[in-house]
Formats: sequence, C-alpha cells, structure tokens
Amino acid sequence: MDTPVATRWLKLTVAYDGAAYAGWQRQPDRPTVQGTLEAAWQRITGDAPSFTASGRTDAGVHALGQVVGVATSCRTTAERLRRGLNAVLPEDVVVVAIDDAPVGFHATHDALRKTYRYQVHDGPVPPLFDRRYVWRVRSRGLDAAAMGQGGARLVGRHDFASFETTGSERASTVRTVIDLSVTRVGPRIDIEVTGDGFLYNMVRSIAGTLVEVGRGAKPAEWVAEVVAGRNRAAAGPTAPAQGLVLVRVEY
Amino acid sequence: MDTPVATRWLKLTVAYDGAAYAGWQRQPDRPTVQGTLEAAWQRITGDAPSFTASGRTDAGVHALGQVVGVATSCRTTAERLRRGLNAVLPEDVVVVAIDDAPVGFHATHDALRKTYRYQVHDGPVPPLFDRRYVWRVRSRGLDAAAMGQGGARLVGRHDFASFETTGSERASTVRTVIDLSVTRVGPRIDIEVTGDGFLYNMVRSIAGTLVEVGRGAKPAEWVAEVVAGRNRAAAGPTAPAQGLVLVRVEY
Repeated sequence: MDTPVATRWLKLTVAYDGAAYAGWQRQPDRPTVQGTLEAAWQRITGDAPSFTASGRTDAGVHALGQVVGVATSCRTTAERLRRGLNAVLPEDVVVVAIDDAPVGFHATHDALRKTYRYQVHDGPVPPLFDRRYVWRVRSRGLDAAAMGQGGARLVGRHDFASFETTGSERASTVRTVIDLSVTRVGPRIDIEVTGDGFLYNMVRSIAGTLVEVGRGAKPAEWVAEVVAGRNRAAAGPTAPAQGLVLVRVEY
Repeated sequence: MDTPVATRWLKLTVAYDGAAYAGWQRQPDRPTVQGTLEAAWQRITGDAPSFTASGRTDAGVHALGQVVGVATSCRTTAERLRRGLNAVLPEDVVVVAIDDAPVGFHATHDALRKTYRYQVHDGPVPPLFDRRYVWRVRSRGLDAAAMGQGGARLVGRHDFASFETTGSERASTVRTVIDLSVTRVGPRIDIEVTGDGFLYNMVRSIAGTLVEVGRGAKPAEWVAEVVAGRNRAAAGPTAPAQGLVLVRVEY
C-alpha cells in the first residue's frame, strides 16, 4: 500500500475496562474495544482508521496501557485529538496519551516488552470497589512469599508450552520472562510479569499455577517441573479474565 | 418494647457501592441498601430484623464503614453470620465485620464521630477503574494546598447553616468539625472530614465549596465568610453523590 506523503504515524496509549467487551479485536455484531475506538476515531477525524495494537486482549481483560498504532492524514494536534476521542468514547475506554511514532510504526511487530498484572483477592471480606478487576479465590491467606519463590522459576528464557492454551498456532513456545514479582497489599495479591512476548493465556496460566503454590497445594519448586513438563496439563488452571490487566508495552 | 432475655446486640460494619441504590433507608418499590441487607438477614436468620444505622446515606453515596445495629435472638456465631450474609448479598453490599455491641446499642444515637471522604478527579485523562466513585470536575490542576487552607477554616465548632441543603428540619445547625484534610494523589484529590455529626448534604456542600477555592474562583479565606454567612447561597454548589464515601463511624 502506498503511504501518502502527508501521513503521520501515531502511537495511542489506551486504557479500558474490558468487562463489557468481547476483547480488543474487532468482530461483527459484538462490542469490542477496537471497534469502539475506531468508531470514535472516525467520528473525530472523518477517516476510517487502520489500527495496529500491541496484541489482542481477550474478552473481559483490562488495560492501563494498551498501545495502538495508526497512520493518518489528520492534522489535528495530538492533544486535541486525545480530548476529542475521550469526549465521544464511552467511559470504559480512555485514551491516555497520543505521541508521534516512527514512520512505519507497527504496534504488534515493534513491541519489545510487555507487562501484565494479574490481580488476586483472597480476603475473608469480599472485594467491593475493585470487585470487577480481581479474581476472588476461595482459599484464604495465600502464601504470597511462596508464590514469589514459585514465580522466580519462570524468570529467564524457557519453553512455556505448559502455559499456553491449546489451539494456538505459534511457531515457537519459547519466550523470555524478564521479571516477575508477587506483591501483597491487604487482601490483594498482584502478580506482575514482564516479558518479551506472551503465549495465548500465558499470564492467566501463570496466575492459576502460582495460586496452587500460594494455597499450599504444591511447593514453589513444582513450578520448575511445570515448565519442564512442556504440557498444559502440568500447570495450574487458567485464571479468569477479569483479574488480568495489560499494564504497559515498551518499544 | 420488651427485650427478651436472650437478645444479643450486634454492630455490623457494612460497605457498599451506592450506585444502584436509592440510598440507605428502606423505601417501598425502590432498591435500598437497608432493604437489601434486611432481606439477606431474614434469609440467613429467619428473623425480620429492626436495623438502626449511623445515618441515612443518600442515593448514590458509598460506604466503607456504615455501622448498623441490630438486636437478635439468633445464636449463630458472628463470623458464620458474616459469611452467610455475604454469601447471599449482591456483590455491591458487603458485611465487613460483626461485633458484639452494648445492650441497647443504637447506631444512630450512640455515634460519636463520623468520617466521610469526598473524592474529586481533576486529571486531563478521564478516570477509568475509579470512575464510579469520583466527581470528575471540569477544571484541571486544582490547587489542593489552597483547598486544604480553605478547609482549615471549617475545623472547630461552627454554625454550618451555609452547608445544609434547605428543607431539613434539624433543631440546630451547629456542629463540630474535628478534622479536615485535603490530599492529592495523582489526578485524585480526597477531602476527608471527621465531625461529631453532619447536616444534610454538608460534606457535599463542603466539597463543592472547596473546589471553588481549588479552581481559583475564590480565595481560601472566603470559606470563613461562607461559614459566617449562615446561608446556603453563600457556599459553593453541592457536589454529586457518587464522589462521597462514608468511611467510618466511631462510638
């Protein structure tokens, strides 16, 4: 496709509450974040956009910093565009920032690192204001320190086949987990994972596996066995979508 | 009314997201927090309860620590009762704690102090995960320090007639504000007020008044004039219900 001389490449940082959406990717007849953002874009700029995103988030998954790339001939300043989009977007999708991007910027292919957070709630009192953004587990008093020790077994370059939902068609299941931390604040345990890429449902499988360790069903060392097993059945269950947040993407 | 010998007096600490409710107080044909809690209580204990509460919260107002008193002949342990109630309550009403209370405990009359928080959002990026619990003001970059200075004029024993919505029938409009703090964290400004009692819409009127100061429409000293005016028209507007949270009640 030719790129007109006047084309501007932009990088949008987008936050959303995924509860009401069938995921990021546009689908006919279902509400999606992409479809919602594209409609707002068209309304503000008059252009039918062609967005790239750092990745598809699944139905119910949230984002604080999804990154979206777009090439446009629209000349409106980034700040006016941002405000204009937020004025027409529903309140569960928010454009946090719009920045210039390098010519040819592709949000999927150019991503170097992503950080996800998985939010677990294990308190005796049900969550209230954050109830839509956590996985409330049945076990009480998860051992967050043991979960951190288990998580440490995932850091590094590994074949993460055990943490991929079957049916995916990726060529390689080798990825590098750059950092993984487990932090408890009151009844909330947040698992934050940074990697150079993630397999399908990888963070949710990691969360389900670490909760097995946290509730004492398995020791921390078991996580190394799960990795070595290269088999989805070796790992813990896939944690629900509503506890997952795409925090940021680095380029 | 006779109190049967076996009656136990209990103090329930209750949190709720007020968005879906026409306030605390039971009303025919409208969802209320009291009605919801009473239905759960009846289902768990078999008794039709007679609840007292620290005060009525208005439609849309939230609570982290509303206090509810009840006299009951139910012998279930407090912890089982708490879990049983939470199991049948909708997810926007949560029983945080159940404690024994003195004989004759009345949550309204025995309250010594209450603390409310009013949550303001003034960031350029719309709120996302806390969007249901803040007042998003149009002004950007409110001066939180000036708001704190204005708020300091309210501390002490004053006639707060300027901060009461008309139509109320209380005998006296004199109250003591024990503490008032204004804290900014990012795009959120939280106004926390502790007092020996509050007039109708008093905290929301205080919030509306301090936002006038924060946006530079009035100087901090103006707040003293508002108090001296003893007239609702002297103060700022009544801030919306959804930013208000009843944080705790002391006995």
